[in-house]
Amino acid sequence: MSQPSPNRQKFIDAAMELFAFQGYANTGLAQIARQAGALPGSLYHLFPTKEDLLAATLHERLRLLRPEVLDPIWMTIDDPIERVFGLLDGYRRMLSMTSFSHGCPIGNLAIELTETHPNIRPLLAANFDNWLDAVAECFAAAADRLPEHADPKQLATFVLTTMEGAVMLARTHRNFDAYDAAVATLRDYIERLLAAGTSGETPETRRVARPRTPTAKNSAE
Amino acid sequence: MSQPSPNRQKFIDAAMELFAFQGYANTGLAQIARQAGALPGSLYHLFPTKEDLLAATLHERLRLLRPEVLDPIWMTIDDPIERVFGLLDGYRRMLSMTSFSHGCPIGNLAIELTETHPNIRPLLAANFDNWLDAVAECFAAAADRLPEHADPKQLATFVLTTMEGAVMLARTHRNFDAYDAAVATLRDYIERLLAAGTSGETPETRRVARPRTPTAKNSAE
Repeated sequence: MSQPSPNRQKFIDAAMELFAFQGYANTGLAQIARQAGALPGSLYHLFPTKEDLLAATLHERLRLLRPEVLDPIWMTIDDPIERVFGLLDGYRRMLSMTSFSHGCPIGNLAIELTETHPNIRPLLAANFDNWLDAVAECFAAAADRLPEHADPKQLATFVLTTMEGAVMLARTHRNFDAYDAAVATLRDYIERLLAAGTSGETPETRRVARPRTPTAKNSAE
Repeated sequence: MSQPSPNRQKFIDAAMELFAFQGYANTGLAQIARQAGALPGSLYHLFPTKEDLLAATLHERLRLLRPEVLDPIWMTIDDPIERVFGLLDGYRRMLSMTSFSHGCPIGNLAIELTETHPNIRPLLAANFDNWLDAVAECFAAAADRLPEHADPKQLATFVLTTMEGAVMLARTHRNFDAYDAAVATLRDYIERLLAAGTSGETPETRRVARPRTPTAKNSAE
């Protein structure tokens, strides 16, 4: 990363906001400079390409996850399971406050750029992983209440897919029906795991209902 | 919709494919005409704007869901619950066959266009609803094996959010780890519902483990 510069942070902040609200392709460097209140020349000097600036914003998002996204929620909620739902509620509030225009910035960029900007993929993946680690920590902290075989990272992945899908549907429908349905179903699942955990379920004692008819074929790959 | 024309279907097919693989903004009308093997003038005549063509592709996707997406899976799988997982496996196979370049075409467009093309939102929502109806039918057909209070539409919504999130993560990571983790967790949930269903669970008899610490606050809105 380059030397600290008073404008560097302004450009990163402006780019983060514009990429999140209007996408990467729709955002020009001149607009970023204008929003940052600095001259374009200084932007080009610090970030020779738009992709350099994009990479810097993704590094910045890695850094900001804990202080800006998680800590405000973690500070008001102690229960590790409820922290997960508090986080989902945070995305809901963000959608509500922005009239659905601000989804998950990483999810948006993942869809927009994954084909066209392969160099950026590892940074998008690192942001997802950072989020997953934080949510997995919550499930790990509640391990004594969950079934022995529940895997914190796998549960965190499920929370992330639920959130990304729920944000997508909320933004398309311009209401929270699907978002709330998905989160309520996730809660039903977690409550069933907690009930199974307190009853001492193990992989051996777990009741599993198999479908009546066997599957005709299964996964290629 | 306009009169049938031999070129009309060619343009729609070409546009569907190009929008799915490279996005809406990245696709030009000239490229669509070239891919369709027809003259641009004929394209402009049938579809005066690119958004007209986009709308036609979304109507076409509504029409194609059953014959092209669902029927091939439904024909090989009888069990309604396994049909849902067969559908998820279909997206996995599509990702695999296209080296992750083909995600969910509706999900991609939803993220790309929901802010900039508000007129298109109802057609995106209709495509999601069409998919949800088909998956809800599966859960409704298995209603006798699920708990009485399980809601087919809510479960279908949860399957859709899982699929959209799982496709996003697979495309970003360029592997199926997160996709498979999400689908395995969804299966664990559905199996728990089936086990509860066969044990005659009702809302009154349902065991629910409540978190130890109450939530500090809940949903703004």
